[in-house]
Amino acid sequence: MRHFVAILMGSDSDYEVMLESANILKKLDVAYELKITSAHRTPDITKAYIKEAEDRGCRVFIAAAGLAAHLAGAISAQTLRPVLGVPIDSGPLKGLDSLLSTVQMPAGVPVGTLALGKAGARNAAFLAASILAVADDELHQRLLAERKAQADKVVEKDSQLGHSS
Amino acid sequence: MRHFVAILMGSDSDYEVMLESANILKKLDVAYELKITSAHRTPDITKAYIKEAEDRGCRVFIAAAGLAAHLAGAISAQTLRPVLGVPIDSGPLKGLDSLLSTVQMPAGVPVGTLALGKAGARNAAFLAASILAVADDELHQRLLAERKAQADKVVEKDSQLGHSS
Amino acid sequence: MRHFVAILMGSDSDYEVMLESANILKKLDVAYELKITSAHRTPDITKAYIKEAEDRGCRVFIAAAGLAAHLAGAISAQTLRPVLGVPIDSGPLKGLDSLLSTVQMPAGVPVGTLALGKAGARNAAFLAASILAVADDELHQRLLAERKAQADKVVEKDSQLGHSS
Amino acid sequence: MRHFVAILMGSDSDYEVMLESANILKKLDVAYELKITSAHRTPDITKAYIKEAEDRGCRVFIAAAGLAAHLAGAISAQTLRPVLGVPIDSGPLKGLDSLLSTVQMPAGVPVGTLALGKAGARNAAFLAASILAVADDELHQRLLAERKAQADKVVEKDSQLGHSS
Amino acid sequence: MRHFVAILMGSDSDYEVMLESANILKKLDVAYELKITSAHRTPDITKAYIKEAEDRGCRVFIAAAGLAAHLAGAISAQTLRPVLGVPIDSGPLKGLDSLLSTVQMPAGVPVGTLALGKAGARNAAFLAASILAVADDELHQRLLAERKAQADKVVEKDSQLGHSS
Amino acid sequence: MRHFVAILMGSDSDYEVMLESANILKKLDVAYELKITSAHRTPDITKAYIKEAEDRGCRVFIAAAGLAAHLAGAISAQTLRPVLGVPIDSGPLKGLDSLLSTVQMPAGVPVGTLALGKAGARNAAFLAASILAVADDELHQRLLAERKAQADKVVEKDSQLGHSS
Amino acid sequence: MRHFVAILMGSDSDYEVMLESANILKKLDVAYELKITSAHRTPDITKAYIKEAEDRGCRVFIAAAGLAAHLAGAISAQTLRPVLGVPIDSGPLKGLDSLLSTVQMPAGVPVGTLALGKAGARNAAFLAASILAVADDELHQRLLAERKAQADKVVEKDSQLGHSS
Amino acid sequence: MRHFVAILMGSDSDYEVMLESANILKKLDVAYELKITSAHRTPDITKAYIKEAEDRGCRVFIAAAGLAAHLAGAISAQTLRPVLGVPIDSGPLKGLDSLLSTVQMPAGVPVGTLALGKAGARNAAFLAASILAVADDELHQRLLAERKAQADKVVEKDSQLGHSS
Repeated sequence: MRHFVAILMGSDSDYEVMLESANILKKLDVAYELKITSAHRTPDITKAYIKEAEDRGCRVFIAAAGLAAHLAGAISAQTLRPVLGVPIDSGPLKGLDSLLSTVQMPAGVPVGTLALGKAGARNAAFLAASILAVADDELHQRLLAERKAQADKVVEKDSQLGHSS
Repeated sequence: MRHFVAILMGSDSDYEVMLESANILKKLDVAYELKITSAHRTPDITKAYIKEAEDRGCRVFIAAAGLAAHLAGAISAQTLRPVLGVPIDSGPLKGLDSLLSTVQMPAGVPVGTLALGKAGARNAAFLAASILAVADDELHQRLLAERKAQADKVVEKDSQLGHSS
Repeated sequence: MRHFVAILMGSDSDYEVMLESANILKKLDVAYELKITSAHRTPDITKAYIKEAEDRGCRVFIAAAGLAAHLAGAISAQTLRPVLGVPIDSGPLKGLDSLLSTVQMPAGVPVGTLALGKAGARNAAFLAASILAVADDELHQRLLAERKAQADKVVEKDSQLGHSS
Repeated sequence: MRHFVAILMGSDSDYEVMLESANILKKLDVAYELKITSAHRTPDITKAYIKEAEDRGCRVFIAAAGLAAHLAGAISAQTLRPVLGVPIDSGPLKGLDSLLSTVQMPAGVPVGTLALGKAGARNAAFLAASILAVADDELHQRLLAERKAQADKVVEKDSQLGHSS
Repeated sequence: MRHFVAILMGSDSDYEVMLESANILKKLDVAYELKITSAHRTPDITKAYIKEAEDRGCRVFIAAAGLAAHLAGAISAQTLRPVLGVPIDSGPLKGLDSLLSTVQMPAGVPVGTLALGKAGARNAAFLAASILAVADDELHQRLLAERKAQADKVVEKDSQLGHSS
Repeated sequence: MRHFVAILMGSDSDYEVMLESANILKKLDVAYELKITSAHRTPDITKAYIKEAEDRGCRVFIAAAGLAAHLAGAISAQTLRPVLGVPIDSGPLKGLDSLLSTVQMPAGVPVGTLALGKAGARNAAFLAASILAVADDELHQRLLAERKAQADKVVEKDSQLGHSS
Repeated sequence: MRHFVAILMGSDSDYEVMLESANILKKLDVAYELKITSAHRTPDITKAYIKEAEDRGCRVFIAAAGLAAHLAGAISAQTLRPVLGVPIDSGPLKGLDSLLSTVQMPAGVPVGTLALGKAGARNAAFLAASILAVADDELHQRLLAERKAQADKVVEKDSQLGHSS
Repeated sequence: MRHFVAILMGSDSDYEVMLESANILKKLDVAYELKITSAHRTPDITKAYIKEAEDRGCRVFIAAAGLAAHLAGAISAQTLRPVLGVPIDSGPLKGLDSLLSTVQMPAGVPVGTLALGKAGARNAAFLAASILAVADDELHQRLLAERKAQADKVVEKDSQLGHSS
């Protein structure tokens, strides 16, 4: 059974942000699924999906939501697999609400929370990959290569600067 | 079937605060139940209770929780009866987390949110009573009497002051 | 006497947001009135309207205001009928001011507060309808149907996604 | 008709803080009255008092309240005399709520807001005195003397330090 | 000697906002001066102006500044005349910095603080006028008329609504 | 090579909080190490430890720090193994600083962030265990049992309540 | 050996802001270098650069970063030369995260923090120059001249106003 | 002329915190002076002291203040010598006010801001010493030794732990 990552989002308005997760997983050759499902509007479908996905090999859940973002917590209440939360900065409070709703989970029901918005979406994919890499050395090597590529990009940007006065 | 108010709380540490709700409902002669149940640790029990309470005549749910307070929202996802949320100011952020997690619900799944802590617990009871009073004129009269008693208390406090220089 | 919902707003600049409340009430076949009146600029008119509306059958008040949003609290001071507050995210603080001014009401004078802006405007209508539905089973059925329609929309959005890698 | 300052507070729990205002006015020989009255629990008494106090010579209103602090704004809605607000730092949010509820008044209904708690209570008295001193040169002289005494106290504290290494 | 209001601002970028103060004072027939001067960049000019303006009849100072807004406090340190502060919502923190820098003055050096930005600029003018009106009954009458005009505008906006469902 | 969890903290003042992590890992029979090391005061020792721990089988890092909490991020910069951050609520800002310093990591260097203080310390242990359980079915079973025990505790607390009026 | 200022930034997206630092240093005839290097993506390059720059005469480091801004702190961990931090207001939280991540450094590892964004970038240059001017009287004179030019600009702006009513 | 550091504070209530600065400067054998003087209550004395201290050899100013903390900015307005600000976490807002009032200085008038309270007081001393050490190699050596001693203390604390499970 191949392990995969499930990327859930509470609304299709989060889709563009969460494509960032998908694209990084694809680049790292990690299997994934995208699903729109709501903790509040479709709670039973959400619950059923979690069980069924886990049975099919899902080993990390990524959940994105804005405002009173309950989705990641609701998933963590239904599975013991690692759950990663991406707070979305929609709404007037610019994500302070979704960040606190996602990260301040009570003891026993953890959500590993990443940064607001696209930075968090990307990092959720990287962290999910590093979790699966605990038992997959080749994936670990791909992560190391990707990190090195990032460093090279910083060096290249720096080399394009006219540096000193 | 007598209508009643269900007072749910995510943890027994919220009990002392939510007694404020219970005491006011008792004073107003409104039936109520108290229940400890967690959106995250006992999601299935929570869901079952909501259906069953509604069948027995529950017409308003009051939910109290701290931190990433998802309980009120999780209830609203399971019932169309009015749900009132009392954010609890536990934890280092003093309730900013529970307030935003309770009030910033997405469209379609409302939680009528009251103030943090004991003020909110009392007001949840008053608002629950005013909801039931829409179809219960005697309860409406008891609410008017209680409001008048509050006003009298302010006047009495004022009369005990030495006022002017 | 037919029951209705009064939607009050402190300024005509809140009108577009509060149309969201009106449209949902219309869809649910709940009678409503819209009124611009200010807690501060027209306090006597506001007070007179509340009494008179209640006499004519108003059973839920929805109040929207921005900045130091006192309108919902001022209404709650004049009636024992349920008052729901919609904080408007106008002004530089993006609604943190109106949210706290609306929700942090002292004990005895409750305002059931919804989310900032349009999400809150919609939810105020849904909560108002659920309050009137305590004594109106047909309205309760319409609410259940609307909730189901929302869930179907989530499922439909999900079905349009290309899901997996 | 002797001019005086009215010090209003929403609750007797604000009394100790507002004694700071009273004591400074007494020291500056400015007449004042203290009154407990609530914008929400006794709105009609509040309104009647404002009119009547103004008729008797009240020329500055100081209002103190905590949480969703509406008292100062409610007074400003009823009088064109200067209204000064002292937000009280009661409640779990430590006065962020009362500060924003007091200061963020919409255009046309001003509240001159002072600092949270005792610092604000003292400054409300100083500002009220400086307002009355616009037409009272002797009071202006007493204010100048008080300011000088404050400066002397700083100098004295400094002189008690062992200063250098 | 005719009394007047001095409107000071820390930067010419605040000019457009503070024209709101000027226009209201003009409408109320209150004399005023506008001045750009900085607490930090031109402290000596600021100090000299305050003394000289007071000698020429200035009886209320309005000060506007953004970021770490020290101007109003610096003025209050140099005069016992009423000082009103308008925090400007420039900069990335949207005025939370200027609001706290203006309102949280230590005891003895008061600044009557108004709302952020244009609402505050307008209210500073209204409050300044109400201060001068303590000794100017005609100005008090003009303020009453202006308040009535505001109320009429709310009523007119309301009358243009199609109200009920 | 047995996998283990490294629990790092920036200061011995974090020790009591992080014992919560250790105790849960012990209960779940997951190997761990505790280490005091600072991102700022001992950066070279921190870096050397990360490499060496990873070589010895460390597969999850938990990092706790207060104030400008850089430790978790500094670890993530040195390893591709999963890094979990526990912001500590020391200092006057009650952890708002450590929370944002831990969670808002830029893309490419993820830190899975848990709640502030003890709740987060416990959840970091649970999440670390669930990560190791991806390749350890017995550990997954122990996690399921622990979750069930938590649910039972909620039910027991509930059964001790006198419930209804 | 000529002393110089190193301006480091975590990302090329900070370049435009940090040009403000460079331009002011150029104007004051202070030598400087610009470098893009990341505390997290290129930690070893960052560390090597700090040592090498210090050997070549760097006596002040300016570091700019957004989000969980660790760069300035990471530099301060590697050198005893003065480190100045410029928090960048990128990301949804508008710099509250970068400000707290930069300024709230634990005892022993100082970062002198300036304002968010361009105001901070300019002031970092001014403060760096004033640090080098402790041992360079001519630079101190250039700073005095620049301050005077700033004051003159305020006076000129003021003189262009039509001042009074 | 021996260079020294001036430590100014707005109130004697800040004295205990600022002793932390003094003790570290003493340990590093850096001359210093302590002075209580207020930006608002004794502005002329503050100004005179700055000029005179600079003439006597003061080359770094450290300023501590709470609430609307203007002292550091007021000093920076009067001198081109480096000014370091320590926001004090007095008052109900726990230093959010003093932090923003100190750090958000407008361009041209820099204040190098340290952390809130004692951590900031210590770091202000370390940063002041590192500024003077630009032209004092022996002081730079003492700073290096002190940093090493701090690292040793972390290592010692770590060695006292029982580390692994």
